[in-house]
Amino acid sequence: MTTHHENKNAVKVGVIGLGTVGQGFVRLFLRESSLVAQRLGFPLELGAVCDRNPEALAALKVPSGCRKTAEAREILSDPEIPLVVELMGGLEPARTFILEAISAGKSVVTANKALLAHHGEEVFGAVARHGVDLGFEASVGGGIPILRTLRESLAGDRILKVSGIINGTCNYILSSMSRDRVDFGTALKEAQRLGYAEADPTFDIDGIDSAHKISILAAMAFGSPVSLSSVPVEGIRHIQPIDLDFGREFGYVLKLLGIASDQGETIDVRVHPCFLPEETSMLAEVDGVFNAIELLGEALGPLLLFGRGAGGDPTATAVMGDVMECARGISHGSRGQVPALGFPFALRVPRPLCALDSISSEYYLRFMAHDQPGTLSYLSGVLGERGISIESVIQKGRQKGGSVPVVVTTHRATESRVREALSIIDSSPHVTEKTVVIRIESAPMEGALS
Amino acid sequence: MTTHHENKNAVKVGVIGLGTVGQGFVRLFLRESSLVAQRLGFPLELGAVCDRNPEALAALKVPSGCRKTAEAREILSDPEIPLVVELMGGLEPARTFILEAISAGKSVVTANKALLAHHGEEVFGAVARHGVDLGFEASVGGGIPILRTLRESLAGDRILKVSGIINGTCNYILSSMSRDRVDFGTALKEAQRLGYAEADPTFDIDGIDSAHKISILAAMAFGSPVSLSSVPVEGIRHIQPIDLDFGREFGYVLKLLGIASDQGETIDVRVHPCFLPEETSMLAEVDGVFNAIELLGEALGPLLLFGRGAGGDPTATAVMGDVMECARGISHGSRGQVPALGFPFALRVPRPLCALDSISSEYYLRFMAHDQPGTLSYLSGVLGERGISIESVIQKGRQKGGSVPVVVTTHRATESRVREALSIIDSSPHVTEKTVVIRIESAPMEGALS
Repeated sequence: MTTHHENKNAVKVGVIGLGTVGQGFVRLFLRESSLVAQRLGFPLELGAVCDRNPEALAALKVPSGCRKTAEAREILSDPEIPLVVELMGGLEPARTFILEAISAGKSVVTANKALLAHHGEEVFGAVARHGVDLGFEASVGGGIPILRTLRESLAGDRILKVSGIINGTCNYILSSMSRDRVDFGTALKEAQRLGYAEADPTFDIDGIDSAHKISILAAMAFGSPVSLSSVPVEGIRHIQPIDLDFGREFGYVLKLLGIASDQGETIDVRVHPCFLPEETSMLAEVDGVFNAIELLGEALGPLLLFGRGAGGDPTATAVMGDVMECARGISHGSRGQVPALGFPFALRVPRPLCALDSISSEYYLRFMAHDQPGTLSYLSGVLGERGISIESVIQKGRQKGGSVPVVVTTHRATESRVREALSIIDSSPHVTEKTVVIRIESAPMEGALS
Repeated sequence: MTTHHENKNAVKVGVIGLGTVGQGFVRLFLRESSLVAQRLGFPLELGAVCDRNPEALAALKVPSGCRKTAEAREILSDPEIPLVVELMGGLEPARTFILEAISAGKSVVTANKALLAHHGEEVFGAVARHGVDLGFEASVGGGIPILRTLRESLAGDRILKVSGIINGTCNYILSSMSRDRVDFGTALKEAQRLGYAEADPTFDIDGIDSAHKISILAAMAFGSPVSLSSVPVEGIRHIQPIDLDFGREFGYVLKLLGIASDQGETIDVRVHPCFLPEETSMLAEVDGVFNAIELLGEALGPLLLFGRGAGGDPTATAVMGDVMECARGISHGSRGQVPALGFPFALRVPRPLCALDSISSEYYLRFMAHDQPGTLSYLSGVLGERGISIESVIQKGRQKGGSVPVVVTTHRATESRVREALSIIDSSPHVTEKTVVIRIESAPMEGALS
């Protein structure tokens, strides 16, 4: 490991995990080695690559000086390798490997959002104690440089809100449900066929992956630890085409969003499907597997970053940017200078997450009501008594004796009041099914779009 | 000036120039001083502010320890101030002040795009020689963190193209011409009334400001000096409503773009109005005074950054981010670690700009032709002989004896061939006016938008 400012010796990098992102990273690393050396003023060298799958290991082309191994500890214990790239994913053994690398004084770059969301406190604490660097730009938004933007570019402004489409699988499924008017199951199967959804899609479609990412974004934006288990999460499995259709009539598009906002004493962090106004929301226009993240800074106003949120090659660019920054720290002897989370670990001010009950929002409510006189009056009465004011109503498809959808959008109301009203309505004889509730996010970018 | 890693002493900042951005910066600096100290782990202190206008100086509220002066040299010669923020704008005396600050070993933050576009080589050379830092994020795109993204986040990928709407004045004027169907003069007057255009708007509407910015972006993206005088620049003064109308019929929106792309041996840098496909171009949707910049990375694919490109507060956030980074370098003794342009000054590989004649593009051509048989056949004949293939034609508004517009869009063709064809056509008896030529930019973000 070199610590002199003028030392132009190569910095050796070890890579653990040769899946899609790992392979993309090694490819980019080797292809752009001279560009990288030109930019850094010193070269990087691939010291070793590791994967437990012998075929992945054998298939990868690496330079003659690069060791191939199935044992991560060969990299972790190699004093010649000061920089470890962890791209294996999952909680264990990734957590153990990363902590070992940090303890050994190595800087680490990872794309592992699950690990950081679950064990961030442990990992960032170790990073601070050992004075190394941890790069994790690739953990949120693939190639979109959202973390460096929060950590450095906007470091001098107060971030009021971060929200975004941060799971391409869900966005692909919702986009096709809306475009092709198919149901969730059909859209999921198509996404699986095209490789946009895993065989077991739970992680994505139930919002867990988005929850990991918004937790990381919130921690960086607000300088507070975020307890993943306190983040309310709702996925897209239950979304029905009828609600996409009604939404369209109101001018709304449905997206799964991660949302984090500064509420003063608390922070509001959540993941759920949202209706967005098609005309004024930039996020509403983001289609297919793309990701987009919107920031709202007190002085800055709105900022949107939009690009490829997944895939080996785009994600590899984020890993590479972090590797170069960590390598600079190693080569110049200035590791640990920029705190990984944008706030020094010990100077953060923990704030609790606010309860979902206490948030306020506009709401889309679809009641399935008996088609009889007085129903709308009953519904609006229950809502009105709780201070929930109706913005618009659609009632359609009268059919004798059956139940009909009555769709209401509300002005801003408190979640607890809405829940209270619905618990009364849903146990009344006026409705035949549990009411569908979808929150509406108004757009901070208003005026920016034609 | 402190150089020890553990020194928690304040870093003193001097500000020269208290116009809109300068005032916005001082306001943000004072408002967020505790957030900034928390993030940095040490405080910043406003050491001195300078403006030649005594009223601006008197009006600004500053803490008691902060000196007010009309003499920039009081700041430049103060050994207690290691960090100078230049927000006066213009070429001189800003150039002299910045060079003096650098020679005195101070780091500098500036928003001065004109200065960097004209005297970048001199300034960046001095920065490299003296081992200080120069932050200039605020010089392009206001609060949009485009420079840090190019310099660090995408440092490991090959940038193929950077293009964007980087002048809010022009975008506001073109947006209102299109929306309200008014002519250029009317839209300009309205923009001036609202404060979106200067009393003397030349700099903006003739594309000069955009040329400054795209030169800086190109220099950072491609690691080559860019000679401003070689950048072809065309403004929006001559844009006529009739072309916006025809463009709309083809599904195009007109925007003033700065475009820079890697052409191998050369780089292509230019500023001119462009038609963008409304359906598939993200930039086409950017309205009013907002800015947006699109990057195309070889591994990354497309990335779009969108936000407020001007104004005191948004621009101040970019200045603040740079000030914090420079302050870290000062406090930790690690100045000069990240080269200002993303490439070490001495390791850049100069590439010439390619001549406008050699570019290829799709084109919108509006001929004003005599309304007589054989005209279209003549026009398409001249184009066809030069290998320019027509994509679509609109001919309308027949009027006896007068001239009528014949509008043609072409497939990709070489600029020199198009110019050759037009010089023949424009000197022929078939047309009554000089042909209007507008380049069409196809969208790299295709597939990303609904």
